[in-house]
Amino acid sequence: MASETGRIEAYSDGVFSIAATLLVLELKPPAAGQPFWQGILHQWPGYVSFVLSFLLIGIIWINHHRLFSHIHRSDEFLLSTNLLLLLGVVWLPYPTSLMAQAVGTPQLRDAAIFYNASYLALSLFFNLLLFVCLRRRLADCGGGGARAISKYYMAGPLMCAMCLLASFWSVALSLTINLVVALYFLLSPGATAMKFTASAR
Amino acid sequence: MASETGRIEAYSDGVFSIAATLLVLELKPPAAGQPFWQGILHQWPGYVSFVLSFLLIGIIWINHHRLFSHIHRSDEFLLSTNLLLLLGVVWLPYPTSLMAQAVGTPQLRDAAIFYNASYLALSLFFNLLLFVCLRRRLADCGGGGARAISKYYMAGPLMCAMCLLASFWSVALSLTINLVVALYFLLSPGATAMKFTASAR
Amino acid sequence: MASETGRIEAYSDGVFSIAATLLVLELKPPAAGQPFWQGILHQWPGYVSFVLSFLLIGIIWINHHRLFSHIHRSDEFLLSTNLLLLLGVVWLPYPTSLMAQAVGTPQLRDAAIFYNASYLALSLFFNLLLFVCLRRRLADCGGGGARAISKYYMAGPLMCAMCLLASFWSVALSLTINLVVALYFLLSPGATAMKFTASAR
Amino acid sequence: MASETGRIEAYSDGVFSIAATLLVLELKPPAAGQPFWQGILHQWPGYVSFVLSFLLIGIIWINHHRLFSHIHRSDEFLLSTNLLLLLGVVWLPYPTSLMAQAVGTPQLRDAAIFYNASYLALSLFFNLLLFVCLRRRLADCGGGGARAISKYYMAGPLMCAMCLLASFWSVALSLTINLVVALYFLLSPGATAMKFTASAR
Repeated sequence: MASETGRIEAYSDGVFSIAATLLVLELKPPAAGQPFWQGILHQWPGYVSFVLSFLLIGIIWINHHRLFSHIHRSDEFLLSTNLLLLLGVVWLPYPTSLMAQAVGTPQLRDAAIFYNASYLALSLFFNLLLFVCLRRRLADCGGGGARAISKYYMAGPLMCAMCLLASFWSVALSLTINLVVALYFLLSPGATAMKFTASAR
Repeated sequence: MASETGRIEAYSDGVFSIAATLLVLELKPPAAGQPFWQGILHQWPGYVSFVLSFLLIGIIWINHHRLFSHIHRSDEFLLSTNLLLLLGVVWLPYPTSLMAQAVGTPQLRDAAIFYNASYLALSLFFNLLLFVCLRRRLADCGGGGARAISKYYMAGPLMCAMCLLASFWSVALSLTINLVVALYFLLSPGATAMKFTASAR
Repeated sequence: MASETGRIEAYSDGVFSIAATLLVLELKPPAAGQPFWQGILHQWPGYVSFVLSFLLIGIIWINHHRLFSHIHRSDEFLLSTNLLLLLGVVWLPYPTSLMAQAVGTPQLRDAAIFYNASYLALSLFFNLLLFVCLRRRLADCGGGGARAISKYYMAGPLMCAMCLLASFWSVALSLTINLVVALYFLLSPGATAMKFTASAR
Repeated sequence: MASETGRIEAYSDGVFSIAATLLVLELKPPAAGQPFWQGILHQWPGYVSFVLSFLLIGIIWINHHRLFSHIHRSDEFLLSTNLLLLLGVVWLPYPTSLMAQAVGTPQLRDAAIFYNASYLALSLFFNLLLFVCLRRRLADCGGGGARAISKYYMAGPLMCAMCLLASFWSVALSLTINLVVALYFLLSPGATAMKFTASAR
């Protein structure tokens, strides 16, 4: 049984880590014919979107990792919704590169909307996966733990929807909210939920 | 023993997940000089072939995963036929990109034939792997279970052959059958076979 | 202990499977402006070098897998020589793409020499790894088994040296020997060595 | 518990091995219109930076592997600092390709500074990860072992800082120190620390 979900995790880890690493292929060398450091500085939009997407893929991976530490068996719905989540992850390098290319052009707002809509879809896929786990009783979380985790993950789509709305008004504001979302998921309540489970074993 | 097939699975998982993730590198940014959303819409053939190939690679992975949960030892024939299957998987991004480039040109039918012929070859390789497992008694499935699985997987080449024939007549029809094949393998009888084995342990 | 060499294998598997999958990125679409199937046929050198390199990487992986099933502890020499072997594997897509580009040009013989020299270096690295395992007593193979394995792997550099020499005289002959090497390692005595060990446990 | 840090290692291994393998995509074919071997020789800067970066990524992986063999539980700080370390690893192909492109141009010194600054940042991230492990008592190293490991890893930033300073004065000197750093970490005291722990179990 352990090896059954174990291999889903292995495939997912592969997809997460490759998607995160492929992001570097989007970084372009500085244009020829200008001083080196000026060329580097001019590339900052690429660096910002590279770092932000790397962190967000890493955060989704951490949450996937936390969720699967609670899952003790798999079925066809888990496999399918997990595949849908991975499709969203594999897609991310594309809106990231569009975002980087659009900085400094009038298409920046549209690219930011596309970028944030991709993250909103991804967070919805993640909640669909959580819903399948709870509904089909694939995860071994007790009453309180399960409810806490559900509420914790529901914050994702709400925050992504806020980023999406903000990007219609101001790209800078939406990127700032993106960063806050990243720090929220990196450093706060999820860890408590994880510790709760660990001590319960 | 477990670690022996375990490492074949690790290598296979790596190849499957990288092939699935590399597909995103085929997605091109919208052409410059047109409105953002119009440019995005114009890229739809790339998105459709990206999603379809991602799902099909994922489905082949799921079936590979199901098959290997029954395999308890390896030999040189398993290693060779598994390598042949992986060769087919690694090949897929190539017909996928040809398909995407051909949409809107008179070469679409030929590209669809090439695309479906690749899937037919892949499904034959998968059945060859299954044949080797059964013939050389590498899998621990009992009489009924083994026969059920064999019949289930034989549907693959039949469906792929139908897609190939359909693509000579209508590309849209062949893509629709592709999607039906995907949904058939994602959501139906395989799960029953898997559960049967799980409960038998 | 098991997990110690286990993680070396995980890293190696990652490198092997990525190197094998990246080969597909070298396949070019048929040139525009000619019939589809004629364009496909014209790409055959790319397909041949793709298949040959995929098989050879897979065979090196299988032998690596066989060798590590005998290794029960690691040290700094194993880590270093394994890293050297992986460097050779990661390098392979480069001579492969040079080979494909050179078909039909007068540079074909030089490219074949470069290609076969890379494989010779790789097979020497593999034997260095085997030497380190035997010398530092990292592998648990008994007298007869160890000697058989040593002889078996020593055939690699000899065959690669023959391919290299043959490529000075005839590219077609060297490719034919490459194929024979592939089939030799895929289908013959290694399996016996592996079975011997498996039954001895 | 084991599987918890095990999956962090799986994700990290994926990122390390992909970053190492993607380096080959930076190798360019020799320019057309010149003799084959002359074209190959002319590409030497690309080969040198490919080998050096491959070795350094491999060395960071080995040290990561050694560190994680001591870690027995994870928390949110470990996940975050490990993500930071991986960000540094994924970044490396970028300064590597800039370095290769700059050889033979007046920008070489600037590119070498950028390259060595990236390694300095990476070694600081590694020490931050070590600090988190010790401070939050995630690793099971006894007093002497822990102190020895700390001192051993502190050599990393010092050596990288020396490379960075040297690159302001002479690129050749900084590359030589890079190579010495590589050999120091590949072949010396770390192995002692690892053996110490292994025998203590």
